[in-house]
Amino acid sequence: MKISARNQIAGKIVAIQPGATTSHISLELPGGVVMMASITNEAVADLGLKIGQQATALVKASDVMIGVE
Amino acid sequence: MKISARNQIAGKIVAIQPGATTSHISLELPGGVVMMASITNEAVADLGLKIGQQATALVKASDVMIGVE
Amino acid sequence: MKISARNQIAGKIVAIQPGATTSHISLELPGGVVMMASITNEAVADLGLKIGQQATALVKASDVMIGVE
Amino acid sequence: MKISARNQIAGKIVAIQPGATTSHISLELPGGVVMMASITNEAVADLGLKIGQQATALVKASDVMIGVE
Amino acid sequence: MKISARNQIAGKIVAIQPGATTSHISLELPGGVVMMASITNEAVADLGLKIGQQATALVKASDVMIGVE
Amino acid sequence: MKISARNQIAGKIVAIQPGATTSHISLELPGGVVMMASITNEAVADLGLKIGQQATALVKASDVMIGVE
Repeated sequence: MKISARNQIAGKIVAIQPGATTSHISLELPGGVVMMASITNEAVADLGLKIGQQATALVKASDVMIGVE
Repeated sequence: MKISARNQIAGKIVAIQPGATTSHISLELPGGVVMMASITNEAVADLGLKIGQQATALVKASDVMIGVE
Repeated sequence: MKISARNQIAGKIVAIQPGATTSHISLELPGGVVMMASITNEAVADLGLKIGQQATALVKASDVMIGVE
Repeated sequence: MKISARNQIAGKIVAIQPGATTSHISLELPGGVVMMASITNEAVADLGLKIGQQATALVKASDVMIGVE
Repeated sequence: MKISARNQIAGKIVAIQPGATTSHISLELPGGVVMMASITNEAVADLGLKIGQQATALVKASDVMIGVE
Repeated sequence: MKISARNQIAGKIVAIQPGATTSHISLELPGGVVMMASITNEAVADLGLKIGQQATALVKASDVMIGVE
């Protein structure tokens, strides 16, 4: 499926931290940047996510803020 | 100011596309990945954003989805 | 691509309303419900969206609120 | 209260899955579509949510993405 | 309608700035704080919003970040 | 760091409610309004949040809805 989200960044899953209903997934992106996603435990099981697996971080442009020093 | 958002990725502004009330900012991150942010025109003026400027993309973990092929 | 978003509802595009940087897409879902998505103009062009086209509305569970009378 | 969110879809609560701070609510919409909301445990108690209860799923247009095959 | 969003803050509309598809609404809250909402032009018309009108800002807890100096 | 989010409201932390992966932070704002933020447990530790501490609630304009009676 092609998605409208403007930010689709490929990476590798380096950590999966389950909670009661929500899990935190850490994804290592190009350049060594690590991005964290908070998704439901059902999604982790549904997608069969595993550490070391290739995955994509998807973020809507309207959910990205900009900071400057 | 230190922010709770888990995703704070430093990069360089490579495009600013203004709209009627909202602008699209493209930020080049490490590894050549380009991230797009949709922010208000007031924010662009308030932060004095310019092409070539160093800036940080901030995203809450709860706004990041995961995709797998 | 399989996506972590818990809400993925198939429907048909019934309206596309472009703005300066953002477009509003109306999607008719099963049961006649119409859902509106606000996406970037780039995404409309990138996905080649047209009225009458089959498409899916994707929403993270954390972006859904509940209301009761 | 009348709300600005463009997506307000009436349905029936078919599941309530509590977590440590957040609960997942499943709402059956017209046409048999089931939508999941992730809301705080306080909200579940505050609204007195029960399985079988009529409720509305509210989603901002800016939180809806579009996918196409 | 009672809403699950944890943040529901009453105030007065002090500015309405329309754009091509989206409008920015400024709401003065208790203590003189001004909050900005970005909503669709349809919502502004649908709710009949006017400057000076009493209105409520609604925000999900998951959309609020914390910053510290 | 200066942030693009239009809503940056200073207040005092009055409650911290930890969950399995996510904590709920209550912030008392001017005029006695209390705002709730849902952030990761890592963020609470990272920012060293404590009850009584001064902190700022940050919300993107696109995450604020308007309600009217």
